[in-house]
Amino acid sequence: MEAKLLQSTDVTGGSFVMLLAVMVGATVFLLLGTGWAGKRWKLPIGLVAITTLTSVLFYYQAQELWFSAGRIPVIYRYAAWMVTIPIQVMALYFYINAVAPLKYGLFWRLLIAAIIMVLSRYMGQVGYLYPVLGFLIGVVAWLYVLGEVFFGKLGEVNAASATHMVKSGFFWLRLIVTIGWGVYPLCEFVANFRGSMLEGHLSIVYNLADIVNQVAFALIILAVGLVESTSNR
Amino acid sequence: MEAKLLQSTDVTGGSFVMLLAVMVGATVFLLLGTGWAGKRWKLPIGLVAITTLTSVLFYYQAQELWFSAGRIPVIYRYAAWMVTIPIQVMALYFYINAVAPLKYGLFWRLLIAAIIMVLSRYMGQVGYLYPVLGFLIGVVAWLYVLGEVFFGKLGEVNAASATHMVKSGFFWLRLIVTIGWGVYPLCEFVANFRGSMLEGHLSIVYNLADIVNQVAFALIILAVGLVESTSNR
Amino acid sequence: MEAKLLQSTDVTGGSFVMLLAVMVGATVFLLLGTGWAGKRWKLPIGLVAITTLTSVLFYYQAQELWFSAGRIPVIYRYAAWMVTIPIQVMALYFYINAVAPLKYGLFWRLLIAAIIMVLSRYMGQVGYLYPVLGFLIGVVAWLYVLGEVFFGKLGEVNAASATHMVKSGFFWLRLIVTIGWGVYPLCEFVANFRGSMLEGHLSIVYNLADIVNQVAFALIILAVGLVESTSNR
Amino acid sequence: MEAKLLQSTDVTGGSFVMLLAVMVGATVFLLLGTGWAGKRWKLPIGLVAITTLTSVLFYYQAQELWFSAGRIPVIYRYAAWMVTIPIQVMALYFYINAVAPLKYGLFWRLLIAAIIMVLSRYMGQVGYLYPVLGFLIGVVAWLYVLGEVFFGKLGEVNAASATHMVKSGFFWLRLIVTIGWGVYPLCEFVANFRGSMLEGHLSIVYNLADIVNQVAFALIILAVGLVESTSNR
Amino acid sequence: MEAKLLQSTDVTGGSFVMLLAVMVGATVFLLLGTGWAGKRWKLPIGLVAITTLTSVLFYYQAQELWFSAGRIPVIYRYAAWMVTIPIQVMALYFYINAVAPLKYGLFWRLLIAAIIMVLSRYMGQVGYLYPVLGFLIGVVAWLYVLGEVFFGKLGEVNAASATHMVKSGFFWLRLIVTIGWGVYPLCEFVANFRGSMLEGHLSIVYNLADIVNQVAFALIILAVGLVESTSNR
Repeated sequence: MEAKLLQSTDVTGGSFVMLLAVMVGATVFLLLGTGWAGKRWKLPIGLVAITTLTSVLFYYQAQELWFSAGRIPVIYRYAAWMVTIPIQVMALYFYINAVAPLKYGLFWRLLIAAIIMVLSRYMGQVGYLYPVLGFLIGVVAWLYVLGEVFFGKLGEVNAASATHMVKSGFFWLRLIVTIGWGVYPLCEFVANFRGSMLEGHLSIVYNLADIVNQVAFALIILAVGLVESTSNR
Repeated sequence: MEAKLLQSTDVTGGSFVMLLAVMVGATVFLLLGTGWAGKRWKLPIGLVAITTLTSVLFYYQAQELWFSAGRIPVIYRYAAWMVTIPIQVMALYFYINAVAPLKYGLFWRLLIAAIIMVLSRYMGQVGYLYPVLGFLIGVVAWLYVLGEVFFGKLGEVNAASATHMVKSGFFWLRLIVTIGWGVYPLCEFVANFRGSMLEGHLSIVYNLADIVNQVAFALIILAVGLVESTSNR
Repeated sequence: MEAKLLQSTDVTGGSFVMLLAVMVGATVFLLLGTGWAGKRWKLPIGLVAITTLTSVLFYYQAQELWFSAGRIPVIYRYAAWMVTIPIQVMALYFYINAVAPLKYGLFWRLLIAAIIMVLSRYMGQVGYLYPVLGFLIGVVAWLYVLGEVFFGKLGEVNAASATHMVKSGFFWLRLIVTIGWGVYPLCEFVANFRGSMLEGHLSIVYNLADIVNQVAFALIILAVGLVESTSNR
Repeated sequence: MEAKLLQSTDVTGGSFVMLLAVMVGATVFLLLGTGWAGKRWKLPIGLVAITTLTSVLFYYQAQELWFSAGRIPVIYRYAAWMVTIPIQVMALYFYINAVAPLKYGLFWRLLIAAIIMVLSRYMGQVGYLYPVLGFLIGVVAWLYVLGEVFFGKLGEVNAASATHMVKSGFFWLRLIVTIGWGVYPLCEFVANFRGSMLEGHLSIVYNLADIVNQVAFALIILAVGLVESTSNR
Repeated sequence: MEAKLLQSTDVTGGSFVMLLAVMVGATVFLLLGTGWAGKRWKLPIGLVAITTLTSVLFYYQAQELWFSAGRIPVIYRYAAWMVTIPIQVMALYFYINAVAPLKYGLFWRLLIAAIIMVLSRYMGQVGYLYPVLGFLIGVVAWLYVLGEVFFGKLGEVNAASATHMVKSGFFWLRLIVTIGWGVYPLCEFVANFRGSMLEGHLSIVYNLADIVNQVAFALIILAVGLVESTSNR
């Protein structure tokens, strides 16, 4: 294996090295957490552990690519998002499902919306759809998920049956889904329609966004699961 | 390690990257699931975890090959199918066996049929048998498995003793074995006898088929196992 | 990593790829099985899990070597056999020990016979001993193990105290030790003394033999352990 | 893979090889320990297991870099510290939290101070801030953490409610945070402002410091956790 | 990865391949064993599992080096011994500690003696100390450990409070520490002061010594732990 030597001022490269460590650590910690949490909370914690595991694979590849080619083609990020975003939406469903049972139909609607959201954006960005069309379909699917989470059955059950801790966790999860996930289309918008962002800077923004959108998202669910498991068992 | 740089429009390559992440995630999730499910359901869940684990190995190799050679010789897929298809048939057997004990003879008949199915197709395709003969033997072995699953002892026990959840899961498993597994011979038929499919497109179809035939197959068994373990323990 | 591209008709190469997947799958499944089985059966199942784990390492190396050099020097197989054969003999001892306690002396005699068996064959084959002498010492050590298993204390305890399931498992294990293990000296005999076998064909025979001698051997012990754990706990 | 041959007198290289082994061993041991300790102690032990796991990744990279380039750019150490230092501060918080519940606000203040401490030092060292300014901000953040640990709520709860074993562990943890962590700024001070240290010697000092600051730190928490779990369960 | 092809008569190379498999197998088996043994025995078993894990890393490197450079610089062995020897001395302490609680002071004295033993030998061998001086300090530290084990508190507690099984295990452990560990200084003495041993032969002797000193050492502790856990739980 050749020398893959990072310059000390290469913040982008350093952020890939750091994110790989963060994702490995988060995955192992969440897998431990599935053993500590009560029965009802194992499923959502297990799901978010899979999202950080997927990011371990992505950041491993990204690091290799950054050292050898100096750039990460956008298809790698989409291949990861195609796995992580739908699983995170499922985790939201099972988070509330741990409070009170939900209908199966909602599960499938959320899952399909999440897949459409990622797929249409990808197709718009590489030219299989008109860029604007792909972007818009992606935003609509995202708004549908937000609608279900805030005003649909998920929001209702949360308001009606959740404990204080679950409610407070759901507040932060919703914030991440709303603002944190908004970083991706915003960056794409800036990068593609105005063309004014360096790829290195874009990567740093995406990497910081991943710490919030994946690691913080996962740790919130873990924290709620552990506190709830202690209090009512 | 050299730069393995994917073009952003290389959907085939992207699907290999994504499938590797999906298979790793599914395997870890199913292994977690064997710890969550009740005693009777650990065995079928463990078996399907082995099928996705085999696919992790396959997609890891496939990704390497795609980057370096741009094609995946068919023998790699057959090496994986020789492991996954027989294990999936065994998982069907133990799925129903968790409801009511079955005879050992049926187990061996199903196992041998599954091995013949894969082996004859391979031999036909590389010319160790007449292509048409290999293809036909494969189809006959497949029909035998379908017969046992729909009208044989498996179908009977399912109809007689299974709970609603187990029946509903078996419905979807049978659908996958019938329609999902039909994709492989269909593609071979089109690709070999008419020669009209690009290898890249064929790989995308196979990869999508694997999401249904392996990941969905496994998650159905996991879902039934978890629900049944909760309800009657 | 360079393109390691297998020809679709390279059955030997394909069998290495497949055996690697089989051994990885078997190891994970057996490790899961040690968690499922009752206390007395964990030890023999754990031991055979180590044999398949050793084979994972061997087949990983063998695949590399096959792709890069087209042949697998016999010393790799002997390095693996030096680990797997003694552990399998120990597994037989602890299999019967799970039925009724055995004497320590027998354990050591079996272990030493197994080591002599592999070591003398290796020394004969590479010329550190006269080939015929090495071969004969190996056969004598093998016959000693067979004698203990069929007519010695192991056979006695099995006949006297074992349940039907344990007896039936021991029948198959003995068959493997007798016929399956006989494949190795037979192939060596044919290959070395008559010199009439292609190395590729020899590898296929050895690989198929490993499926029986290691994977089937291990799964028999697992199956007996799981059934016994269910029935008398 | 090429020959990566270490000279027998290359103590720096040898210390990287050794530290990798130490970190792998410590991580596996701590992960085992999370299974042995009582419920309250699993969280702090799990957290320090993540810090040594991060160091596994770092020392793996450091070893590669040392062999191929003969130096380890400082950004790799900072990428690791950005993960390990905040987690260790969290571990201190949850260590005392296992004795008596603490307020959430303190958690966030400690976490932010730890992040500022590492980030400002990095920015000073690579020139994104004036070196002296970066260094001073880092020292102030470190003093804040020390203040909380000695005189703030953590110190109070420890003095008021902890058992003898917990108190004695906290004494050593505080010593490490005070003196052990002081090695890093001291070395930077000597290396950057006076420029008189060879990079190889600096690495040996850092590596020895990591044995104390990470491995000893983690093992103290493990030891306290195991003793406490035995005594009051 | 290039062809790393071993000659069939290269016994040294073959012994590295075999020892890697042995160490991987032993590590997995011992980790399983920590789950099977009773609470008091988990700690010593876990510690020896870490020693074989360290050897996995060493033999992996040694195999690479043997193939590419044909020799293994002595610093690699010392880097491994710096980890394994102190942990084994700790395992002895906790082995007797599982019988009756020992004083902390003894623990630290043993640990420091073990570190001095390895460090002084290394410094003597590479010339940081006079060879004879380094050798003698190493021997003195070794004799101190032997003194504690035979005539000190460890020997006393063993004689006074241990069961038959524990005593018998301690007998063998002492034998290994006395005779098995004596192989290293003996070989160094022969190799360095008389210069009459080929490096390949030296490696074979060290590798065989490791099977006794690490694998047998670990399995004795595991065996005692498992038998004791069954008998008095």
